Amino acid sequence: MSNTQQTKAFGTEAADAALQAMNITRREVLSDDVEIEILYCGVCHSDLHTARNDWGGTVYPAVPGHEIVGRVSRVGSAVSRFKAGDLAAVGCMVDSCGECGNCKKDLEQYCTKGFTGTYNGVDKHLGARTYGGYSEKVVVKEHFVLKVPASLDLAATAPLLCAGITTWSPLRHWKVGKGSTIAVVGLGGLGHMAIKLARGLGAHVTLFSRTPDKKQDALDLGADDIIISTDDAAMEAAAGRFDLIIDTVPYVHDLNPYIRTLSASGTLVLVGFLGKLEPMLNTAPMVIGRKAISGSLIGGIAETQEMLDFCGEHNISSEIELINIQDINEAYERMLKSDVRYRFVIDMASLKQ
Amino acid sequence: MSNTQQTKAFGTEAADAALQAMNITRREVLSDDVEIEILYCGVCHSDLHTARNDWGGTVYPAVPGHEIVGRVSRVGSAVSRFKAGDLAAVGCMVDSCGECGNCKKDLEQYCTKGFTGTYNGVDKHLGARTYGGYSEKVVVKEHFVLKVPASLDLAATAPLLCAGITTWSPLRHWKVGKGSTIAVVGLGGLGHMAIKLARGLGAHVTLFSRTPDKKQDALDLGADDIIISTDDAAMEAAAGRFDLIIDTVPYVHDLNPYIRTLSASGTLVLVGFLGKLEPMLNTAPMVIGRKAISGSLIGGIAETQEMLDFCGEHNISSEIELINIQDINEAYERMLKSDVRYRFVIDMASLKQ
Repeated sequence: MSNTQQTKAFGTEAADAALQAMNITRREVLSDDVEIEILYCGVCHSDLHTARNDWGGTVYPAVPGHEIVGRVSRVGSAVSRFKAGDLAAVGCMVDSCGECGNCKKDLEQYCTKGFTGTYNGVDKHLGARTYGGYSEKVVVKEHFVLKVPASLDLAATAPLLCAGITTWSPLRHWKVGKGSTIAVVGLGGLGHMAIKLARGLGAHVTLFSRTPDKKQDALDLGADDIIISTDDAAMEAAAGRFDLIIDTVPYVHDLNPYIRTLSASGTLVLVGFLGKLEPMLNTAPMVIGRKAISGSLIGGIAETQEMLDFCGEHNISSEIELINIQDINEAYERMLKSDVRYRFVIDMASLKQ
Repeated sequence: MSNTQQTKAFGTEAADAALQAMNITRREVLSDDVEIEILYCGVCHSDLHTARNDWGGTVYPAVPGHEIVGRVSRVGSAVSRFKAGDLAAVGCMVDSCGECGNCKKDLEQYCTKGFTGTYNGVDKHLGARTYGGYSEKVVVKEHFVLKVPASLDLAATAPLLCAGITTWSPLRHWKVGKGSTIAVVGLGGLGHMAIKLARGLGAHVTLFSRTPDKKQDALDLGADDIIISTDDAAMEAAAGRFDLIIDTVPYVHDLNPYIRTLSASGTLVLVGFLGKLEPMLNTAPMVIGRKAISGSLIGGIAETQEMLDFCGEHNISSEIELINIQDINEAYERMLKSDVRYRFVIDMASLKQ
């Protein structure tokens, strides 16, 4: 038996090329692997940045997609938690070293050797690049495959695998629950999930937005109120209010006005912006109020399962716009204009057309 | 009975004047007040900055000193925890609102209305400025008076009231104990207490220093090792190592190299630098490793008592150089050159000369 298999996918051959149908090579199912027929795949900003090599390091052909929901088609001989026909999901990681201190603490996302990304990572068995969920199927080590609650809409579940866990992990790490007062900066794919999940956990949730036109949307998603971040009086009135701020903005922006709105011992968590912070951070309010700035990256596998189970129990999923794979290039252009409420999800049945 | 009393002190009349003997007015002992004959007063960098109006806002005459150890001379009728003859100590705070959420959580240092500083604060009863510990006595509300363990050297105990609690509070807030791996940046008054207290709590302690000449001192104080922060290879080898870094450096400096040495979920706590952070902070390693930067300010009253009791049990106090009050101006000049191991303490008996 060959140790590889050919798989239909949709990807790109170059940074400036459109995505198109292609065939890719995946590994055959190993003893601890699960093969999943992909039903839906969410569209994350990272997909676009990787396809266009915005961060450097993309190896072509590139097949994005790390918000994967599907049905198990085959399992390896050592797989115990899944069988053919089960619903299954895969997020941003498909492997990690499994041996470092972080992996042993269920923090695979902080694996000291680096986790294997679902796309543009290096497949440990083939040595070739990994290919993501814009594809008919995927082969993933069992440890990195999640169970999907049967109660949720499958298409709307896909974005939980990245946008959901990215906001869930800081909510849990900083112990948000009933009585917590939290804020969310930015209302996109991540921000709308942060509101839903924080509300689900019982927190009082405020959206920071630059414009008032998002108020009704924020309230509809479960926010308790909105603060217009350009309104100095409103920002002043919010001084010292929030235990946790989840900042989903993906570009450089001034954190100083938000720091003021943290309570003593509060933390602002960056989940969207990786880069150099401008303008300069003033540490005085951080010292005088024991206020922190942190970052946070997706979440561990156990934490991702916890989030999916929580969403199943609380009927929480993403607000999505379902598209065919043939519409992906147009969807990327709309994402660049923030013209999506709140996440595109690809109906992978369209790949068969 | 007059509601004020005259007290001998040593202070300054202007930013550019030397400190000298003077008489000041303190309030008389109110029902919930404790009057303390001051035996020793530590010399903090804040004393110098306030005397010279480096931060603005100093009202003259100014009498510094917020590391106060002495003996109770009188108590008000409602005082229950102290009686004349008891040892007692006072730190950086002599009052707070007592009613805000932070005060109710024993976080008087983060009182939302602002705590009353031991010097250059506003006495709530007189409306005048408060005067610090470079003085024969002080009158302080009972809640802000600490018990002093009888086992400790009294002069070496004084610096615990600021340098001690400033480093103890983050060690406790971030749950440092046996098995923790921590680092200290800077070996001055704060840094040397951070080493002693962290070691006392059972942590593995590393000193970051720019020069190797502090190695033996650091080891003598209880550090396990030292990393020369200008040695790129040594810094690289320390990547991902520390759960907590206590950064005591009082001037602007590059935090990026230290962030790399934090473990996943680790925190760098600034206790010395209040100002704008240069060069720019790179958030990428913060996001990719859930690493945080926070500040921390002294500690609450209950936490200060906890620290003093811990020091009594573990025989921990400051390394000091005892001076007479008449030497204070020279001591300030030496502090500016970091020429002190590690804290000046004034023998207040010298004020009677």
